[in-house]
Amino acid sequence: MDFEFDRTTSVTSIDGGFELDLDPGWVVGGGVNGGYLLAVLGRAVRRTLPGKPDPFSVSAHYLSASVPGPARVQTHVVRDGGRTGTARAELSQAGEARITALATFGDLAALPDEVRTTALPPDLPPLEDCVQTAMAPAETRRTAPVLDRFDLRLDPSSIGWALGAPSGRGVIQGWTRLADGREPDPLALLMFCDSLPPVTYDLGLMGWAPTIELTCHVRAVPAPGWLRIRHATTNLAGGMFEEDCDLWDSRGRLVAQSRQLAFAPRG
Amino acid sequence: MDFEFDRTTSVTSIDGGFELDLDPGWVVGGGVNGGYLLAVLGRAVRRTLPGKPDPFSVSAHYLSASVPGPARVQTHVVRDGGRTGTARAELSQAGEARITALATFGDLAALPDEVRTTALPPDLPPLEDCVQTAMAPAETRRTAPVLDRFDLRLDPSSIGWALGAPSGRGVIQGWTRLADGREPDPLALLMFCDSLPPVTYDLGLMGWAPTIELTCHVRAVPAPGWLRIRHATTNLAGGMFEEDCDLWDSRGRLVAQSRQLAFAPRG
Repeated sequence: MDFEFDRTTSVTSIDGGFELDLDPGWVVGGGVNGGYLLAVLGRAVRRTLPGKPDPFSVSAHYLSASVPGPARVQTHVVRDGGRTGTARAELSQAGEARITALATFGDLAALPDEVRTTALPPDLPPLEDCVQTAMAPAETRRTAPVLDRFDLRLDPSSIGWALGAPSGRGVIQGWTRLADGREPDPLALLMFCDSLPPVTYDLGLMGWAPTIELTCHVRAVPAPGWLRIRHATTNLAGGMFEEDCDLWDSRGRLVAQSRQLAFAPRG
Repeated sequence: MDFEFDRTTSVTSIDGGFELDLDPGWVVGGGVNGGYLLAVLGRAVRRTLPGKPDPFSVSAHYLSASVPGPARVQTHVVRDGGRTGTARAELSQAGEARITALATFGDLAALPDEVRTTALPPDLPPLEDCVQTAMAPAETRRTAPVLDRFDLRLDPSSIGWALGAPSGRGVIQGWTRLADGREPDPLALLMFCDSLPPVTYDLGLMGWAPTIELTCHVRAVPAPGWLRIRHATTNLAGGMFEEDCDLWDSRGRLVAQSRQLAFAPRG
């Protein structure tokens, strides 16, 4: 495998489950990025449901923060038949459950071509007018090495928080791709849907926002090239918020939609 | 129990699981309403996680259509600690899995009061200008007895499909409450989030739209009174569509948000 996404999500079949070392390159703050973990689960489920290579819907409930190092993914087929198969998957470290998930997989290439999308892609400035996160302060990149996995170009209108002036809209958006040029595919979309800073930054809440649950629908095989990504929240209340992520491919198709529920930072 | 929602979702603890008879009053077409089933799962999980009475997030993957009659719900605690507990729950009939779900529960009453919602409630005509589904043709109500569970008043702008003139917007919205006056609570919100006709009706696709996966976030204990409900889709593609449901209580709070992935009717 030539690309770091493939290398760091690769799982080995051992004793009826899968094992891997969670890679330190995906660390953000005190834990490992939740999107990366979702892709790891997806890779194990793909191996568990032959002939159904693609995630249609993956629902993950996050139980405790993952750390770099050995991890095990145990999968269990709940139903496999017809167009879809459904499996449970649990990621654990040293016997402690980190994430439990349900995944329904199928074959995106076998779906009909018809598209009747009424959603509109985010209106982004051209790439060259966006802000590269590679320009983030060295200290930020040290505590969030995950930033180095991406070539991420954020819309200047949604990064006021980086300068102490959050917009208050609850939107962070931009262009993204993997830093080493690996093209997006359905498993990578699982990862991209949790790849931006918490959207609560744009509300002026700069702390960690632990995910309670994240569900991602992968709707099409993405075309090669840049993805447009948009995170938004509209309902911060009771100490929790929802974060919706839409991912659009280079051909202008809405290829994935996710929603997570997370605890708001104690701003 | 005085109300049919409580009576028909009530589960009995038997042999380490829960049992009930799925009630024929919740039938719609060939199966049992998915929201009703979600509430049944929620009731079993509530019994499984003492001190955590409320669904924060429930993710259900629908495996096969349920029918009226005996059903069993098996639950299993994945993690219980701190603010939340997470359980698996599976509903089966005659040994065949119908729904498998993950549920994270907690105590909504213990959450902070702060509300910073930027979403706006649906702009609905007053109750008296909406269309009562109790006025649906007798034939419709015979194949969908679930309609009789609700006092549902649909916004006339979103029911063109009933007259052969769907709006094409992908929106169905209105006012709703339980027909017998039972007030909404967090478990009932699980049910309401799948209580309208498929939003694909408003796109002119009048058939059955089987749910693949539905996740509901309950965000607050609803106030008594009418709920405003809005179902919307923006991405019908590849033979599938997402259906988002927002539920607003009588005090104007966004009390639940759900999203489902479903197969589109073959229009």
